[in-house]
Formats: sequence, C-alpha cells, structure tokens
Amino acid sequence: MHKLRILSIGKTKESWLEEAIDEYLKRLSKIICIEFVWAKNDEQLLALASKEPTLVCLDANGKMMNSEAFSTFIVKKFEEGGSRLAIVIGGAEGLPTKLKQHPTLISLSPMTFTHQLVRLVLVEQIYRAFEIDKGSCYHK
Amino acid sequence: MHKLRILSIGKTKESWLEEAIDEYLKRLSKIICIEFVWAKNDEQLLALASKEPTLVCLDANGKMMNSEAFSTFIVKKFEEGGSRLAIVIGGAEGLPTKLKQHPTLISLSPMTFTHQLVRLVLVEQIYRAFEIDKGSCYHK
Repeated sequence: MHKLRILSIGKTKESWLEEAIDEYLKRLSKIICIEFVWAKNDEQLLALASKEPTLVCLDANGKMMNSEAFSTFIVKKFEEGGSRLAIVIGGAEGLPTKLKQHPTLISLSPMTFTHQLVRLVLVEQIYRAFEIDKGSCYHK
Repeated sequence: MHKLRILSIGKTKESWLEEAIDEYLKRLSKIICIEFVWAKNDEQLLALASKEPTLVCLDANGKMMNSEAFSTFIVKKFEEGGSRLAIVIGGAEGLPTKLKQHPTLISLSPMTFTHQLVRLVLVEQIYRAFEIDKGSCYHK
C-alpha cells in the first residue's frame, strides 16, 4: 500500500469539494492511502515539508506534463520513496519562497486554479495515473 | 449582459459538481449569463455548434494560455461575437473529428481531465477572466 501525504494551507469546508475528493479517495483506497495535512501558515508548511524524505511541490512555474507522463513520474516517485511520498500545494499566495527553489516542481496547468480546485484536480490525476499504469480503460 | 452557451455531451448529475458550478454562475450572474446545452451524441453536438456564429472549442491539442492571456482572449471573443459566444466541450472521447479542425481550439492543461472537471475548471476560469479584466484582487 502506497502512502501519500498532501500538505497544504488553509483547510476548506466546501462540502461539494469533500464529496468529490472522497469519491477518488474511495476508488484509490486499495492501492494508496491519501492523508491531507493542513498547515496554518507558510512557516508551518515549511516545517512539515522539511520532514518529508520524498517531496514534490506544485508550482505555476513547475514542469508541465500530460497525464501519461505524470503517471510514469508519480509511479517512479513512489518507488524512489519506498511507497512514501508527499506533495505540497501552496496557499492562495502560492508556495513559500523557499519551496519555489525545490528541485521537483510540477505544474498542473499554465492557468491559475483556486487551491481548492488544485486539490481536486490533483487527486483525480493521481487516480488517473494509477489507472494508466495498470492499463485500464479509464484513460483513453 | 454577455451570453455564453457551453455545448457538451452527456449531462451529468453529480450533485457536488452542480453545487460548485452554481457558485460561479451566481457570482457571474451580473455580467454574464451562462447556459449549458446538452447534446446526446457527436452528431447533435456538431449540429448545435454549426448554428453558433462565434465558437471556441476545448481540445487537448488546443493552444494553452495562462489565466491572464485567457482573460484577454475571452473578453475579445465576446467583443467579436457582440456579447454572444459558445464554447464546445467534447465527450469522453474528446471533440468530434470535424471540430478538431476548428480554427479556435484552446486547451486548459496538457493533462486529461474528466469532462465533468473540465466544466468546473472552465467556469472558474471564466469567472477569473472577468475578475482579471476588472482588476479585482481575486486573481493575484
């Protein structure tokens, strides 16, 4: 079982978002356990990130890839991390400056999304990544 | 008041999606009226699209742009169309082949999203586009 921690700022309570994300967490529950970890501010986010051995940061200036490349990337990252991985999502202001220098920055789109939407898009892409990896028909 | 028709295939009933989209429709309701028009299949989608004088199609191979460029683009498109515009979202298989040749293809991300997520991301980007255009602090 893979373990993924998604570190981000500012817990939101939109019920529609939780419902949508829960659907993907349920579908993923046999192969990956996703834990959301909430920081109150950039300082706390940095402290949490510094404890993670294998880290990926989402940033507008990060590397963009299509879903197939993201699948290969994320499966490899889990291998590197011995099935443990953490992904950081910045708050409304983006990533803390220190993390903008991180060697592994990726971007979901050239467009700016709300950080709520980023969570949903990310979780759907992770689900898609594992479906691509096992060759299912989810991703055509 | 601008009028936007979003043409797509396969009406979905996910309540979380409707709730999320409704939030943006409400926020946009003073400047733009968005109508979702549902086709049953590619043929019907093509017929609907052919009646639209100003059309934009979402396609994986379309032009990517950041949110600022999308704002300029969409405001200009409404000007060209005399405040009327239609945007086509393909079904699970993407756009019908004929529309893949359309001169105005745009892409929200190099990644593949579900067409449900495309609707939500699109509506949020349209809201963001008008906030950018009026210089609000929504888009930092």
